[in-house]
Amino acid sequence: MNFKEELKQWSQKVDEALDRYIPSSDAYPSVIHEAMRYSIFAGGKRLRPILVLAATQAVGGNTEKVMPVACAMELIHTYSLVHDDLPAMDNDDFRRGRPTNHKVYGEAMAILVGDALQTLAFELIAQTTESFEADRVNQVTLEIAKAAGSSGLIGGQVVDILSENRDIDGDTLEYIHRHKTGALFRASIRAGAILGGATVNQLAALTLYAEQMGLAFQIKDDLLDIEGDEAKIGKPVGSDIKNQKSTYPSIYGIEEAKRMATEAAAEAVNAIKIFNHKAEFLQDIMHFIINRDH
Amino acid sequence: MNFKEELKQWSQKVDEALDRYIPSSDAYPSVIHEAMRYSIFAGGKRLRPILVLAATQAVGGNTEKVMPVACAMELIHTYSLVHDDLPAMDNDDFRRGRPTNHKVYGEAMAILVGDALQTLAFELIAQTTESFEADRVNQVTLEIAKAAGSSGLIGGQVVDILSENRDIDGDTLEYIHRHKTGALFRASIRAGAILGGATVNQLAALTLYAEQMGLAFQIKDDLLDIEGDEAKIGKPVGSDIKNQKSTYPSIYGIEEAKRMATEAAAEAVNAIKIFNHKAEFLQDIMHFIINRDH
Repeated sequence: MNFKEELKQWSQKVDEALDRYIPSSDAYPSVIHEAMRYSIFAGGKRLRPILVLAATQAVGGNTEKVMPVACAMELIHTYSLVHDDLPAMDNDDFRRGRPTNHKVYGEAMAILVGDALQTLAFELIAQTTESFEADRVNQVTLEIAKAAGSSGLIGGQVVDILSENRDIDGDTLEYIHRHKTGALFRASIRAGAILGGATVNQLAALTLYAEQMGLAFQIKDDLLDIEGDEAKIGKPVGSDIKNQKSTYPSIYGIEEAKRMATEAAAEAVNAIKIFNHKAEFLQDIMHFIINRDH
Repeated sequence: MNFKEELKQWSQKVDEALDRYIPSSDAYPSVIHEAMRYSIFAGGKRLRPILVLAATQAVGGNTEKVMPVACAMELIHTYSLVHDDLPAMDNDDFRRGRPTNHKVYGEAMAILVGDALQTLAFELIAQTTESFEADRVNQVTLEIAKAAGSSGLIGGQVVDILSENRDIDGDTLEYIHRHKTGALFRASIRAGAILGGATVNQLAALTLYAEQMGLAFQIKDDLLDIEGDEAKIGKPVGSDIKNQKSTYPSIYGIEEAKRMATEAAAEAVNAIKIFNHKAEFLQDIMHFIINRDH
Protein backbone atom coordinates (compact mmCIF):
# COMPACT_ATOMS: atom_id res chain seq x y z
CA MET A 1 0.00 0.00 0.00
CA ASN A 2 1.42 3.40 -0.90
CA PHE A 3 1.38 6.40 1.41
CA LYS A 4 -1.66 8.14 -0.09
CA GLU A 5 -3.74 4.97 0.25
CA GLU A 6 -2.57 4.41 3.81
CA LEU A 7 -3.33 8.01 4.70
CA LYS A 8 -6.80 7.69 3.23
CA GLN A 9 -7.43 4.45 5.10
CA TRP A 10 -6.43 5.95 8.42
CA SER A 11 -8.40 9.09 7.82
CA GLN A 12 -11.46 6.91 7.10
CA LYS A 13 -10.93 4.97 10.31
CA VAL A 14 -10.74 8.24 12.21
CA ASP A 15 -13.95 9.41 10.56
CA GLU A 16 -15.72 6.18 11.50
CA ALA A 17 -14.55 6.53 15.09
CA LEU A 18 -15.61 10.17 15.28
CA ASP A 19 -19.02 9.12 14.01
CA ARG A 20 -19.26 6.58 16.84
CA TYR A 21 -18.00 8.93 19.54
CA ILE A 22 -20.05 12.05 18.78
CA PRO A 23 -23.69 11.82 19.88
CA SER A 24 -25.98 11.29 16.90
CA SER A 25 -27.95 14.17 15.41
CA ASP A 26 -31.06 12.60 16.97
CA ALA A 27 -29.70 12.84 20.51
CA TYR A 28 -31.50 15.54 22.49
CA PRO A 29 -30.93 18.46 22.19
CA SER A 30 -30.41 17.57 18.56
CA VAL A 31 -29.34 20.95 17.19
CA ILE A 32 -26.07 21.00 19.13
CA HIS A 33 -25.14 17.50 18.00
CA GLU A 34 -26.03 18.30 14.42
CA ALA A 35 -23.93 21.47 14.64
CA MET A 36 -21.00 19.61 16.23
CA ARG A 37 -21.12 17.09 13.40
CA TYR A 38 -21.37 19.84 10.79
CA SER A 39 -17.94 21.19 11.71
CA ILE A 40 -16.31 17.84 12.49
CA PHE A 41 -17.36 16.31 9.18
CA ALA A 42 -16.38 19.30 7.06
CA GLY A 43 -13.58 17.44 5.34
CA GLY A 44 -10.50 18.03 7.49
CA LYS A 45 -7.27 16.20 6.80
CA ARG A 46 -7.39 14.44 10.23
CA LEU A 47 -3.71 15.24 10.56
CA ARG A 48 -3.67 15.39 14.36
CA PRO A 49 -5.44 12.05 14.92
CA ILE A 50 -3.20 10.43 12.33
CA LEU A 51 -0.13 11.80 14.14
CA VAL A 52 -1.37 10.17 17.35
CA LEU A 53 -1.82 6.84 15.58
CA ALA A 54 1.48 7.09 13.70
CA ALA A 55 3.40 7.80 16.92
CA THR A 56 1.77 4.79 18.59
CA GLN A 57 2.70 2.70 15.57
CA ALA A 58 6.31 3.93 15.62
CA VAL A 59 6.80 2.69 19.19
CA GLY A 60 5.00 -0.60 18.48
CA GLY A 61 1.79 0.18 20.39
CA ASN A 62 -1.84 -0.72 19.67
CA THR A 63 -3.30 1.90 17.31
CA GLU A 64 -6.91 0.67 17.71
CA LYS A 65 -6.92 1.37 21.42
CA VAL A 66 -5.47 4.85 21.00
CA MET A 67 -8.34 5.91 18.72
CA PRO A 68 -10.38 7.82 21.37
CA VAL A 69 -7.36 10.03 22.12
CA ALA A 70 -6.69 10.45 18.39
CA CYS A 71 -10.27 11.66 17.94
CA ALA A 72 -9.97 13.91 21.00
CA MET A 73 -7.20 15.83 19.23
CA GLU A 74 -9.47 16.41 16.23
CA LEU A 75 -12.25 17.63 18.54
CA ILE A 76 -9.92 20.13 20.20
CA HIS A 77 -8.59 21.29 16.84
CA THR A 78 -12.11 21.73 15.45
CA TYR A 79 -13.39 23.52 18.56
CA SER A 80 -10.56 26.04 18.18
CA LEU A 81 -11.46 26.59 14.50
CA VAL A 82 -15.17 27.09 15.28
CA HIS A 83 -14.35 29.72 17.91
CA ASP A 84 -11.62 31.26 15.74
CA ASP A 85 -14.09 31.82 12.90
CA LEU A 86 -16.55 33.76 15.10
CA PRO A 87 -17.28 37.40 14.22
CA ALA A 88 -15.54 38.56 17.40
CA MET A 89 -12.40 36.66 16.37
CA ASP A 90 -11.37 36.21 12.70
CA ASN A 91 -14.92 36.74 11.38
CA ASP A 92 -14.61 34.10 8.66
CA ASP A 93 -17.67 33.15 6.62
CA PHE A 94 -16.09 30.10 4.99
CA ARG A 95 -13.97 27.23 6.22
CA ARG A 96 -12.87 24.35 4.03
CA GLY A 97 -15.12 25.73 1.29
CA ARG A 98 -18.32 25.61 3.38
CA PRO A 99 -20.09 28.28 5.44
CA THR A 100 -18.62 28.44 8.94
CA ASN A 101 -20.54 27.05 11.91
CA HIS A 102 -21.96 30.38 13.10
CA LYS A 103 -23.12 31.25 9.56
CA VAL A 104 -25.29 28.12 9.63
CA TYR A 105 -26.28 27.74 13.29
CA GLY A 106 -25.83 31.26 14.66
CA GLU A 107 -23.22 32.65 16.99
CA ALA A 108 -24.68 31.40 20.26
CA MET A 109 -24.76 27.82 18.99
CA ALA A 110 -21.26 28.07 17.51
CA ILE A 111 -19.89 29.17 20.88
CA LEU A 112 -21.60 26.20 22.55
CA VAL A 113 -20.46 23.83 19.80
CA GLY A 114 -16.84 24.79 20.46
CA ASP A 115 -17.35 24.40 24.20
CA ALA A 116 -18.97 20.99 23.80
CA LEU A 117 -16.31 19.69 21.42
CA GLN A 118 -13.65 20.55 23.96
CA THR A 119 -15.55 18.84 26.77
CA LEU A 120 -16.12 15.74 24.65
CA ALA A 121 -12.39 15.57 23.95
CA PHE A 122 -11.63 15.17 27.64
CA GLU A 123 -14.47 12.68 28.03
CA LEU A 124 -12.96 10.53 25.27
CA ILE A 125 -9.49 10.69 26.77
CA ALA A 126 -10.81 9.58 30.16
CA GLN A 127 -12.60 6.67 28.47
CA THR A 128 -9.33 5.14 27.27
CA THR A 129 -8.79 3.88 30.82
CA GLU A 130 -10.54 0.76 29.60
CA SER A 131 -7.47 0.03 27.47
CA PHE A 132 -4.52 1.59 29.29
CA GLU A 133 -3.10 1.98 32.75
CA ALA A 134 -4.95 4.85 34.36
CA ASP A 135 -1.85 6.79 35.33
CA ARG A 136 -0.69 6.83 31.73
CA VAL A 137 -4.09 8.14 30.70
CA ASN A 138 -3.77 10.87 33.29
CA GLN A 139 -0.33 11.79 32.02
CA VAL A 140 -1.84 12.14 28.55
CA THR A 141 -4.76 14.22 29.85
CA LEU A 142 -2.26 16.54 31.48
CA GLU A 143 -0.14 16.83 28.29
CA ILE A 144 -3.17 17.60 26.17
CA ALA A 145 -4.72 20.05 28.64
CA LYS A 146 -1.45 21.98 28.86
CA ALA A 147 -1.08 22.00 25.08
CA ALA A 148 -4.64 23.27 24.63
CA GLY A 149 -4.63 25.82 27.46
CA SER A 150 -3.59 29.42 28.07
CA SER A 151 0.09 28.50 27.88
CA GLY A 152 -0.49 26.48 24.71
CA LEU A 153 -3.02 26.75 21.88
CA ILE A 154 -5.04 29.51 23.54
CA GLY A 155 -1.87 31.43 24.43
CA GLY A 156 -0.99 31.37 20.75
CA GLN A 157 -4.43 32.67 19.80
CA VAL A 158 -4.12 35.49 22.31
CA VAL A 159 -0.76 36.66 20.98
CA ASP A 160 -2.09 36.30 17.45
CA ILE A 161 -5.00 38.61 18.28
CA LEU A 162 -2.72 41.10 20.03
CA SER A 163 -0.47 41.12 16.94
CA GLU A 164 -3.19 41.97 14.42
CA ASN A 165 -2.39 44.96 12.23
CA ARG A 166 0.99 45.29 13.90
CA ASP A 167 4.50 44.54 12.72
CA ILE A 168 5.85 41.68 14.80
CA ASP A 169 9.32 40.19 15.00
CA GLY A 170 10.39 36.63 14.23
CA ASP A 171 10.32 35.62 17.90
CA THR A 172 6.70 36.66 18.34
CA LEU A 173 5.72 34.92 15.11
CA GLU A 174 7.45 31.78 16.34
CA TYR A 175 5.65 32.02 19.68
CA ILE A 176 2.28 32.29 17.93
CA HIS A 177 2.83 29.27 15.74
CA ARG A 178 4.66 27.13 18.26
CA HIS A 179 1.55 27.53 20.43
CA LYS A 180 -1.35 28.01 18.04
CA THR A 181 -0.43 25.10 15.76
CA GLY A 182 2.67 23.45 17.20
CA ALA A 183 1.33 22.65 20.66
CA LEU A 184 -1.43 20.33 19.40
CA PHE A 185 0.91 18.58 16.93
CA ARG A 186 3.39 18.02 19.74
CA ALA A 187 0.70 16.79 22.14
CA SER A 188 -0.73 14.46 19.47
CA ILE A 189 2.63 12.83 18.85
CA ARG A 190 3.49 12.65 22.54
CA ALA A 191 0.07 11.26 23.51
CA GLY A 192 0.36 8.52 20.92
CA ALA A 193 3.90 7.75 22.01
CA ILE A 194 3.11 7.68 25.74
CA LEU A 195 0.07 5.44 25.31
CA GLY A 196 2.04 3.24 22.92
CA GLY A 197 4.64 2.66 25.61
CA ALA A 198 7.52 4.84 24.35
CA THR A 199 10.90 4.79 26.13
CA VAL A 200 12.40 8.11 27.27
CA ASN A 201 14.63 8.25 24.18
CA GLN A 202 11.80 7.41 21.82
CA LEU A 203 9.60 10.09 23.38
CA ALA A 204 12.39 12.68 23.03
CA ALA A 205 12.96 11.76 19.36
CA LEU A 206 9.26 11.96 18.53
CA THR A 207 8.92 15.26 20.38
CA LEU A 208 11.71 16.77 18.29
CA TYR A 209 10.05 15.41 15.15
CA ALA A 210 6.75 17.02 16.18
CA GLU A 211 8.31 20.40 16.87
CA GLN A 212 10.18 20.61 13.56
CA MET A 213 7.22 19.21 11.66
CA GLY A 214 4.94 21.84 13.22
CA LEU A 215 7.29 24.61 12.12
CA ALA A 216 7.51 23.25 8.56
CA PHE A 217 3.71 22.90 8.47
CA GLN A 218 3.15 26.52 9.45
CA ILE A 219 5.66 27.98 7.01
CA LYS A 220 4.08 25.90 4.27
CA ASP A 221 0.66 27.23 5.30
CA ASP A 222 1.92 30.78 4.98
CA LEU A 223 3.45 30.01 1.58
CA LEU A 224 0.21 28.46 0.33
CA ASP A 225 -1.61 31.65 1.25
CA ILE A 226 0.65 33.43 -1.25
CA GLU A 227 1.26 30.81 -3.93
CA GLY A 228 -1.63 28.37 -3.43
CA ASP A 229 -4.62 27.56 -5.58
CA GLU A 230 -7.80 29.10 -4.12
CA ALA A 231 -10.00 26.22 -5.28
CA LYS A 232 -7.76 23.70 -3.53
CA ILE A 233 -7.18 25.44 -0.20
CA GLY A 234 -10.87 26.35 0.13
CA LYS A 235 -10.36 29.98 1.14
CA PRO A 236 -9.24 33.12 -0.68
CA VAL A 237 -5.52 33.31 -1.45
CA GLY A 238 -3.77 36.41 -0.14
CA SER A 239 -5.96 36.72 2.97
CA ASP A 240 -2.89 37.14 5.20
CA ILE A 241 -1.70 40.10 3.14
CA LYS A 242 -5.22 41.55 3.05
CA ASN A 243 -5.49 41.16 6.83
CA GLN A 244 -1.99 42.60 7.24
CA LYS A 245 -0.93 39.45 9.05
CA SER A 246 2.76 38.87 9.69
CA THR A 247 3.86 35.53 8.26
CA TYR A 248 7.14 33.72 7.67
CA PRO A 249 7.33 34.96 4.06
CA SER A 250 6.44 38.52 5.09
CA ILE A 251 9.16 38.59 7.75
CA TYR A 252 11.87 36.50 6.10
CA GLY A 253 11.00 36.70 2.38
CA ILE A 254 9.63 33.85 0.25
CA GLU A 255 12.95 32.20 -0.58
CA GLU A 256 14.25 32.20 2.99
CA ALA A 257 10.88 30.91 4.25
CA LYS A 258 11.09 28.03 1.79
CA ARG A 259 14.62 27.25 2.96
CA MET A 260 13.48 27.29 6.61
CA ALA A 261 10.62 24.90 5.84
CA THR A 262 12.92 22.49 4.02
CA GLU A 263 15.45 22.58 6.86
CA ALA A 264 12.80 21.96 9.53
CA ALA A 265 11.40 19.05 7.53
CA ALA A 266 14.87 17.54 7.20
CA GLU A 267 15.46 17.84 10.94
CA ALA A 268 12.10 16.22 11.65
CA VAL A 269 12.93 13.25 9.45
CA ASN A 270 16.42 13.01 10.95
CA ALA A 271 15.04 12.93 14.50
CA ILE A 272 13.12 9.70 13.92
CA LYS A 273 15.90 7.72 12.23
CA ILE A 274 16.19 5.59 15.38
CA PHE A 275 12.85 3.95 14.52
CA ASN A 276 14.06 2.71 11.10
CA HIS A 277 11.18 1.43 8.95
CA LYS A 278 8.68 1.73 11.81
CA ALA A 279 8.66 5.48 11.35
CA GLU A 280 8.32 5.36 7.57
CA PHE A 281 4.80 6.65 7.81
CA LEU A 282 5.88 9.64 9.92
CA GLN A 283 8.57 10.38 7.33
CA ASP A 284 5.97 10.24 4.60
CA ILE A 285 3.70 12.57 6.56
CA MET A 286 6.51 15.10 6.73
CA HIS A 287 7.07 14.90 2.98
CA PHE A 288 3.34 15.11 2.39
CA ILE A 289 3.05 18.26 4.51
CA ILE A 290 5.94 20.03 2.85
CA ASN A 291 4.75 19.14 -0.66
CA ARG A 292 0.98 19.60 -0.23
CA ASP A 293 -0.92 22.04 -2.42
CA HIS A 294 -3.78 22.70 0.06
CA MET B 1 -17.51 27.27 64.79
CA ASN B 2 -20.92 28.09 63.35
CA PHE B 3 -21.97 27.41 59.77
CA LYS B 4 -21.40 30.90 58.40
CA GLU B 5 -17.85 30.95 59.76
CA GLU B 6 -17.13 27.47 58.42
CA LEU B 7 -18.51 28.45 55.02
CA LYS B 8 -16.35 31.55 54.97
CA GLN B 9 -13.28 29.58 55.97
CA TRP B 10 -13.79 27.03 53.21
CA SER B 11 -14.54 29.66 50.64
CA GLN B 12 -11.27 31.39 51.61
CA LYS B 13 -9.36 28.15 51.24
CA VAL B 14 -10.87 27.68 47.81
CA ASP B 15 -9.87 31.24 46.88
CA GLU B 16 -6.31 30.63 48.02
CA ALA B 17 -6.14 27.43 46.01
CA LEU B 18 -7.58 29.10 42.91
CA ASP B 19 -4.94 31.79 43.29
CA ARG B 20 -2.23 29.11 43.32
CA TYR B 21 -3.67 27.12 40.41
CA ILE B 22 -4.42 29.92 37.93
CA PRO B 23 -1.31 31.30 36.20
CA SER B 24 -0.36 34.71 37.62
CA SER B 25 -1.26 37.89 35.76
CA ASP B 26 2.44 38.21 34.90
CA ALA B 27 2.53 34.88 33.05
CA TYR B 28 2.80 35.41 29.29
CA PRO B 29 0.49 36.20 27.56
CA SER B 30 -0.56 38.22 30.58
CA VAL B 31 -3.88 39.60 29.34
CA ILE B 32 -5.56 36.18 29.23
CA HIS B 33 -4.45 35.33 32.75
CA GLU B 34 -5.52 38.72 34.05
CA ALA B 35 -8.90 38.24 32.33
CA MET B 36 -9.28 34.70 33.70
CA ARG B 37 -8.60 36.02 37.19
CA TYR B 38 -11.01 38.92 36.71
CA SER B 39 -13.96 36.57 36.36
CA ILE B 40 -12.78 33.95 38.84
CA PHE B 41 -12.20 36.52 41.58
CA ALA B 42 -15.46 38.37 41.04
CA GLY B 43 -16.88 37.27 44.39
CA GLY B 44 -18.70 34.03 43.68
CA LYS B 45 -20.10 31.93 46.52
CA ARG B 46 -17.76 28.99 45.66
CA LEU B 47 -20.75 26.73 46.14
CA ARG B 48 -19.58 23.99 43.74
CA PRO B 49 -16.08 23.65 45.21
CA ILE B 50 -17.54 23.63 48.71
CA LEU B 51 -19.93 20.85 47.67
CA VAL B 52 -16.96 18.80 46.48
CA LEU B 53 -15.18 19.32 49.80
CA ALA B 54 -18.32 18.70 51.87
CA ALA B 55 -19.02 15.42 50.07
CA THR B 56 -15.44 14.29 50.67
CA GLN B 57 -15.83 15.22 54.33
CA ALA B 58 -19.13 13.34 54.62
CA VAL B 59 -17.50 10.08 53.52
CA GLY B 60 -14.43 10.65 55.70
CA GLY B 61 -11.98 11.52 52.90
CA ASN B 62 -9.11 14.00 52.75
CA THR B 63 -10.48 17.43 51.80
CA GLU B 64 -7.04 18.98 51.23
CA LYS B 65 -6.20 16.55 48.48
CA VAL B 66 -9.53 17.04 46.72
CA MET B 67 -8.92 20.78 46.36
CA PRO B 68 -7.77 20.74 42.69
CA VAL B 69 -11.02 19.03 41.68
CA ALA B 70 -13.02 21.43 43.86
CA CYS B 71 -11.40 24.35 42.04
CA ALA B 72 -11.95 22.67 38.67
CA MET B 73 -15.70 22.83 39.28
CA GLU B 74 -15.48 26.57 39.92
CA LEU B 75 -13.47 27.02 36.71
CA ILE B 76 -16.10 25.16 34.69
CA HIS B 77 -18.91 27.13 36.33
CA THR B 78 -17.15 30.44 35.67
CA TYR B 79 -16.31 29.56 32.05
CA SER B 80 -20.00 28.88 31.43
CA LEU B 81 -20.95 32.24 32.95
CA VAL B 82 -18.38 34.13 30.88
CA HIS B 83 -19.69 32.57 27.66
CA ASP B 84 -23.30 32.91 28.79
CA ASP B 85 -22.86 36.66 29.26
CA LEU B 86 -21.58 37.21 25.70
CA PRO B 87 -23.61 39.44 23.36
CA ALA B 88 -24.50 36.43 21.19
CA MET B 89 -25.89 34.63 24.25
CA ASP B 90 -27.56 36.50 27.15
CA ASN B 91 -25.83 39.80 26.37
CA ASP B 92 -25.34 40.74 30.01
CA ASP B 93 -23.28 43.80 30.90
CA PHE B 94 -23.08 43.05 34.60
CA ARG B 95 -22.37 39.97 36.65
CA ARG B 96 -22.08 39.95 40.42
CA GLY B 97 -22.29 43.74 40.33
CA ARG B 98 -19.24 44.18 38.07
CA PRO B 99 -18.94 44.63 34.30
CA THR B 100 -18.89 41.25 32.55
CA ASN B 101 -15.68 39.87 31.11
CA HIS B 102 -16.34 40.93 27.52
CA LYS B 103 -17.23 44.46 28.63
CA VAL B 104 -13.75 44.78 30.11
CA TYR B 105 -11.57 42.63 27.84
CA GLY B 106 -13.58 42.48 24.63
CA GLU B 107 -15.52 39.61 23.09
CA ALA B 108 -12.60 37.76 21.53
CA MET B 109 -10.75 37.62 24.83
CA ALA B 110 -13.90 36.59 26.75
CA ILE B 111 -14.39 33.65 24.37
CA LEU B 112 -10.78 32.58 24.93
CA VAL B 113 -11.06 33.13 28.69
CA GLY B 114 -13.98 30.71 28.83
CA ASP B 115 -12.13 28.21 26.67
CA ALA B 116 -9.00 28.44 28.82
CA LEU B 117 -10.90 28.10 32.09
CA GLN B 118 -12.46 24.87 30.85
CA THR B 119 -9.08 23.50 29.73
CA LEU B 120 -7.48 24.42 33.05
CA ALA B 121 -10.25 22.56 34.87
CA PHE B 122 -9.30 19.29 33.18
CA GLU B 123 -5.62 20.01 33.77
CA LEU B 124 -6.29 20.39 37.49
CA ILE B 125 -8.32 17.20 37.66
CA ALA B 126 -5.55 15.23 35.96
CA GLN B 127 -3.07 16.64 38.46
CA THR B 128 -4.83 15.00 41.40
CA THR B 129 -3.24 11.71 40.34
CA GLU B 130 -0.46 12.70 42.72
CA SER B 131 -2.90 12.08 45.58
CA PHE B 132 -5.37 9.45 44.36
CA GLU B 133 -5.43 6.22 42.45
CA ALA B 134 -5.34 7.10 38.79
CA ASP B 135 -8.42 5.09 37.85
CA ARG B 136 -10.49 6.96 40.42
CA VAL B 137 -9.24 10.23 38.95
CA ASN B 138 -10.28 9.03 35.51
CA GLN B 139 -13.72 8.11 36.78
CA VAL B 140 -14.05 11.64 38.13
CA THR B 141 -12.82 13.17 34.86
CA LEU B 142 -15.49 11.19 33.05
CA GLU B 143 -18.24 12.25 35.49
CA ILE B 144 -17.30 15.90 35.19
CA ALA B 145 -16.88 15.84 31.39
CA LYS B 146 -20.31 14.27 30.99
CA ALA B 147 -21.86 16.77 33.37
CA ALA B 148 -20.29 19.69 31.52
CA GLY B 149 -20.91 18.45 27.97
CA SER B 150 -23.66 18.49 25.38
CA SER B 151 -25.76 16.06 27.41
CA GLY B 152 -25.19 18.08 30.58
CA LEU B 153 -24.52 21.76 31.25
CA ILE B 154 -24.23 22.68 27.56
CA GLY B 155 -27.37 20.70 26.69
CA GLY B 156 -29.21 22.77 29.29
CA GLN B 157 -27.90 25.98 27.75
CA VAL B 158 -29.01 24.87 24.31
CA VAL B 159 -32.56 24.12 25.40
CA ASP B 160 -32.59 27.37 27.35
CA ILE B 161 -31.67 29.30 24.19
CA LEU B 162 -34.24 27.41 22.12
CA SER B 163 -36.89 28.24 24.73
CA GLU B 164 -36.35 32.00 24.71
CA ASN B 165 -39.49 34.04 24.14
CA ARG B 166 -41.51 30.83 24.03
CA ASP B 167 -43.92 29.29 26.49
CA ILE B 168 -42.43 26.07 27.75
CA ASP B 169 -43.90 23.31 29.88
CA GLY B 170 -42.73 22.10 33.26
CA ASP B 171 -40.79 19.17 31.77
CA THR B 172 -38.73 21.41 29.51
CA LEU B 173 -38.06 23.79 32.37
CA GLU B 174 -36.91 20.86 34.50
CA TYR B 175 -34.66 19.64 31.69
CA ILE B 176 -33.04 23.07 31.43
CA HIS B 177 -32.31 23.35 35.11
CA ARG B 178 -31.42 19.74 35.75
CA HIS B 179 -28.72 20.22 33.10
CA LYS B 180 -27.79 23.88 33.22
CA THR B 181 -27.40 24.05 36.99
CA GLY B 182 -28.10 20.58 38.37
CA ALA B 183 -25.47 18.66 36.40
CA LEU B 184 -22.52 20.55 37.90
CA PHE B 185 -23.93 20.32 41.44
CA ARG B 186 -24.38 16.60 40.99
CA ALA B 187 -20.90 16.14 39.51
CA SER B 188 -19.36 18.22 42.32
CA ILE B 189 -20.94 16.08 45.00
CA ARG B 190 -20.17 12.84 43.20
CA ALA B 191 -16.56 13.81 42.45
CA GLY B 192 -15.95 14.65 46.11
CA ALA B 193 -17.62 11.42 47.19
CA ILE B 194 -15.76 9.20 44.72
CA LEU B 195 -12.35 10.68 45.56
CA GLY B 196 -13.20 10.52 49.27
CA GLY B 197 -13.78 6.78 48.93
CA ALA B 198 -17.61 6.59 49.11
CA THR B 199 -19.36 3.22 49.20
CA VAL B 200 -22.08 2.53 46.63
CA ASN B 201 -24.80 3.41 49.16
CA GLN B 202 -23.08 6.57 50.23
CA LEU B 203 -22.65 7.67 46.62
CA ALA B 204 -26.34 7.02 45.90
CA ALA B 205 -27.43 9.01 48.97
CA LEU B 206 -25.21 11.95 48.09
CA THR B 207 -26.38 11.87 44.48
CA LEU B 208 -30.00 12.14 45.59
CA TYR B 209 -29.04 15.00 47.91
CA ALA B 210 -27.34 16.79 45.00
CA GLU B 211 -30.31 16.40 42.68
CA GLN B 212 -32.89 17.69 45.17
CA MET B 213 -30.57 20.45 46.31
CA GLY B 214 -30.06 21.55 42.70
CA LEU B 215 -33.80 21.76 42.17
CA ALA B 216 -34.32 23.77 45.36
CA PHE B 217 -31.45 26.05 44.38
CA GLN B 218 -32.94 26.83 41.00
CA ILE B 219 -36.45 27.50 42.25
CA LYS B 220 -34.97 29.80 44.88
CA ASP B 221 -33.02 31.58 42.12
CA ASP B 222 -36.22 32.16 40.19
CA LEU B 223 -37.97 33.42 43.32
CA LEU B 224 -35.12 35.85 44.09
CA ASP B 225 -35.49 37.30 40.60
CA ILE B 226 -39.02 38.26 41.60
CA GLU B 227 -38.74 38.99 45.30
CA GLY B 228 -35.02 39.66 45.78
CA ASP B 229 -33.14 42.83 46.64
CA GLU B 230 -31.32 44.21 43.59
CA ALA B 231 -28.37 45.49 45.62
CA LYS B 232 -27.85 42.05 47.13
CA ILE B 233 -28.21 39.84 44.06
CA GLY B 234 -26.01 42.15 41.96
CA LYS B 235 -28.28 42.26 38.91
CA PRO B 236 -31.63 43.87 38.11
CA VAL B 237 -34.64 42.20 39.72
CA GLY B 238 -37.33 41.13 37.27
CA SER B 239 -34.94 40.32 34.42
CA ASP B 240 -36.64 36.95 33.82
CA ILE B 241 -40.01 38.64 33.32
CA LYS B 242 -38.41 41.33 31.14
CA ASN B 243 -36.72 38.63 29.05
CA GLN B 244 -39.97 36.61 28.94
CA LYS B 245 -38.18 33.68 30.49
CA SER B 246 -40.21 30.78 31.78
CA THR B 247 -39.43 30.07 35.44
CA TYR B 248 -40.84 27.91 38.24
CA PRO B 249 -42.95 30.79 39.58
CA SER B 250 -44.18 31.71 36.08
CA ILE B 251 -45.25 28.13 35.35
CA TYR B 252 -46.43 27.00 38.80
CA GLY B 253 -47.17 30.29 40.57
CA ILE B 254 -45.17 31.78 43.44
CA GLU B 255 -46.78 29.82 46.28
CA GLU B 256 -46.50 26.45 44.57
CA ALA B 257 -42.89 27.21 43.57
CA LYS B 258 -42.10 27.94 47.22
CA ARG B 259 -43.70 24.68 48.28
CA MET B 260 -41.71 22.76 45.67
CA ALA B 261 -38.47 24.34 46.87
CA THR B 262 -39.21 23.46 50.48
CA GLU B 263 -40.09 19.89 49.57
CA ALA B 264 -36.93 19.40 47.50
CA ALA B 265 -34.83 20.81 50.34
CA ALA B 266 -36.46 18.42 52.81
CA GLU B 267 -35.80 15.45 50.54
CA ALA B 268 -32.19 16.51 50.14
CA VAL B 269 -31.68 16.64 53.89
CA ASN B 270 -33.50 13.35 54.34
CA ALA B 271 -31.26 11.61 51.79
CA ILE B 272 -28.11 12.21 53.80
CA LYS B 273 -29.42 11.08 57.19
CA ILE B 274 -27.24 7.95 56.91
CA PHE B 275 -24.15 10.11 57.50
CA ASN B 276 -25.38 11.46 60.86
CA HIS B 277 -23.29 14.38 62.10
CA LYS B 278 -20.73 13.94 59.31
CA ALA B 279 -23.21 15.48 56.88
CA GLU B 280 -24.18 18.36 59.13
CA PHE B 281 -22.40 20.77 56.87
CA LEU B 282 -24.30 19.52 53.81
CA GLN B 283 -27.55 19.97 55.75
CA ASP B 284 -26.54 23.50 56.64
CA ILE B 285 -25.70 24.22 53.00
CA MET B 286 -29.21 23.15 52.03
CA HIS B 287 -30.76 25.46 54.61
CA PHE B 288 -28.43 28.24 53.55
CA ILE B 289 -29.44 27.88 49.90
CA ILE B 290 -33.16 27.86 50.60
CA ASN B 291 -32.93 30.86 52.94
CA ARG B 292 -30.40 32.99 51.05
CA ASP B 293 -31.27 36.51 49.96
CA HIS B 294 -28.81 36.68 47.02
